[in-house]
Amino acid sequence: MNQSPISTTDALPVVRLLPKAKPQVIRHGFPWVFANELVMDRRTKGVTPGGLVVVEDAERRALGLGTMNPLSKIAVRMLDFDPDAVIDQAWFKAKLACALQHRDAIYDEPVYRLVHAEADGLPGIIIDRFGDVAVIQPNAAYAEAMLEPLVAALIDLTGVTTVIKNGTGRARSLEGLEEEMVVVHGTQPTGAIPVMMNGATYMADVMGGQKTGLFLDQRPNHAFAAGLMNGGRMLDMFSHVGGFSLAALAAGAGSALAVDGSAPALELAKAGAEATGVADRFETRQGDAFDVLEALGAEEEVFDVVVCDPPAFAPSKPSAEKGLRAYERLARLAAPLVKEGGYLVLCSCSHAADLKRFRDASARGIGRGGRRSQLVYTGSAGPDHPLLPQLAESGYLKALVFRL
Amino acid sequence: MNQSPISTTDALPVVRLLPKAKPQVIRHGFPWVFANELVMDRRTKGVTPGGLVVVEDAERRALGLGTMNPLSKIAVRMLDFDPDAVIDQAWFKAKLACALQHRDAIYDEPVYRLVHAEADGLPGIIIDRFGDVAVIQPNAAYAEAMLEPLVAALIDLTGVTTVIKNGTGRARSLEGLEEEMVVVHGTQPTGAIPVMMNGATYMADVMGGQKTGLFLDQRPNHAFAAGLMNGGRMLDMFSHVGGFSLAALAAGAGSALAVDGSAPALELAKAGAEATGVADRFETRQGDAFDVLEALGAEEEVFDVVVCDPPAFAPSKPSAEKGLRAYERLARLAAPLVKEGGYLVLCSCSHAADLKRFRDASARGIGRGGRRSQLVYTGSAGPDHPLLPQLAESGYLKALVFRL
Repeated sequence: MNQSPISTTDALPVVRLLPKAKPQVIRHGFPWVFANELVMDRRTKGVTPGGLVVVEDAERRALGLGTMNPLSKIAVRMLDFDPDAVIDQAWFKAKLACALQHRDAIYDEPVYRLVHAEADGLPGIIIDRFGDVAVIQPNAAYAEAMLEPLVAALIDLTGVTTVIKNGTGRARSLEGLEEEMVVVHGTQPTGAIPVMMNGATYMADVMGGQKTGLFLDQRPNHAFAAGLMNGGRMLDMFSHVGGFSLAALAAGAGSALAVDGSAPALELAKAGAEATGVADRFETRQGDAFDVLEALGAEEEVFDVVVCDPPAFAPSKPSAEKGLRAYERLARLAAPLVKEGGYLVLCSCSHAADLKRFRDASARGIGRGGRRSQLVYTGSAGPDHPLLPQLAESGYLKALVFRL
Repeated sequence: MNQSPISTTDALPVVRLLPKAKPQVIRHGFPWVFANELVMDRRTKGVTPGGLVVVEDAERRALGLGTMNPLSKIAVRMLDFDPDAVIDQAWFKAKLACALQHRDAIYDEPVYRLVHAEADGLPGIIIDRFGDVAVIQPNAAYAEAMLEPLVAALIDLTGVTTVIKNGTGRARSLEGLEEEMVVVHGTQPTGAIPVMMNGATYMADVMGGQKTGLFLDQRPNHAFAAGLMNGGRMLDMFSHVGGFSLAALAAGAGSALAVDGSAPALELAKAGAEATGVADRFETRQGDAFDVLEALGAEEEVFDVVVCDPPAFAPSKPSAEKGLRAYERLARLAAPLVKEGGYLVLCSCSHAADLKRFRDASARGIGRGGRRSQLVYTGSAGPDHPLLPQLAESGYLKALVFRL
């Protein structure tokens, strides 16, 4: 960890907007300055990645304090509208306290995304909290450099006893940061930790799992699907640690079959079913989702609720068309497995497939699967994943519930 | 009421798609045929409004049974993919049973929109159920003509004791139907009826109120806002019978002020507060919303949660720009009344203001009101208001929750 928090006391480099850029956008809260909006002189290009800068408009009026990465298209991320702000432990604590107040207002248990980057005033920083354990993703160079005061503020405010740095995100390589997964405070948890959500107990492998070990963003969608069960049977495709199926079983589903390609994920799902007390109604099957769907179709299996929550098939624009075809194929294979009058839950976490295109691909797949449908629910990430209104198109998570 | 249900036994007029029309769209479930997709010969033009027709593609293959209104741009609404279907009480009962199964799966109490028109396979028909009382809006000519078997099927299936026909919708005049409000089965309720939703008791004036006496579509959004209260104070602008405020008080809000232009609506809200047992924490103020917001601003009042749920400011495309300016002004006046870290709930039921434009207008208004915001929730109508995927853009209700 960097031992010398970046000083903001004086002599910060100044970067200036071009006359064509619109400073009022920044004043109204847009958090980014693009490289092509800046006067790119030698001094600006020479700023250390992650270093602090004072941002001025073309008339040399200060717009605030930002962090600069001259290698990124998003050259500056705004940190404070006060150009004299000091980015230290107290500054982080104020930001975290504001974020915590919102989560405290909504959740009974301390399980939530505590910091969702820009929308919580901390660009490039993600913090997930699982009770006494917090997992930080410092996906921007300044966050890596300032990790020590950030962690100190987090411990001071929340009393978490373990803080893990998850430095495995794709965003880090764009910022020139190394991959690493390390305990930065407290002791490493021995194995997976239990996390309560929607009445189920999930086992989260915070050191070795995907992302931060548990997908918190689907919480309201898990709850909605669980409310449809009424004792019925669920098929949970791409189950990971059992997100949809354990919530459904906790809410009274008769049984659930979880399918995933990852054996360790299914082991965690089984452990979660044990912890939730529903292991007798829970089955797993390891395999490729498309293969398993075809096999279940051949076996003429049917379910009251079928969920497909795959990884991003269309993570980037060039992959959008191919990804949409994969979503359509998934819907086509899954639809015949849904009972008449049952429900099909189709999710996408692809940035490049917007809601309309994902919905159209899903409806087309259902039609090609020989079924007609009503759309009864359109869900997104929960309220612990706030968005800046200016960047609200970036809401990546879509959960559609069709009744067939 | 029409005493002779339309016969479907034989000799139905046949209408044919033009070669340019796409019959597969109908086969995949699109429920409408537009006038410009039909061969418009003299016989087709002569079909009685609301009459049944067999729809064929350009190659004379039957696509199904529809109901035709030669005066409407939507010339045919599809009723059944079987061209030999008989539209009678049994047919209505099968459609209603399918719709009821979905509501039964979701709600503990029989309070819901039972039929949401096209998406429930009954074009132009809305049925809201408040326990033993059902309110039907037959907004298409065939529905008016077939009201008797429809009502009989409804009573047979659900056991409701009172059925009211609400014939006041704008859609009816487009179909050449008269305005009327009449009890078609059972006895007229004496005064408003109590309706339980989200833990609150609302008083619904099913004979004299707006729409069907209570807005059921906001149920999930009422619940979300109620979950933010934590003992705080709510301002409920355009409260109608207290949709947001009574749910908030039932969930433990410290107090609520409901504002509406309608004295009768506020009387119902007060009666609902009495019935919910929260009258001591409930206040009302009658007046123009914009005036009251300005007055509250001048009084320097602040609230933990402010809700603005106005009537449609942009009901049609020509009114969109003006409507968006009204939404922006509302956000500008409401934002200063929200405590630091509190929430502003902004709703739109305008078809012509889509989600992005409404969100942008709201965010702009908040900015001009001197506040910055996070968007924490985007809600729509509840699952008893399903959509056809092909018409999902028609999701008219938007509820945005900003944290300021």
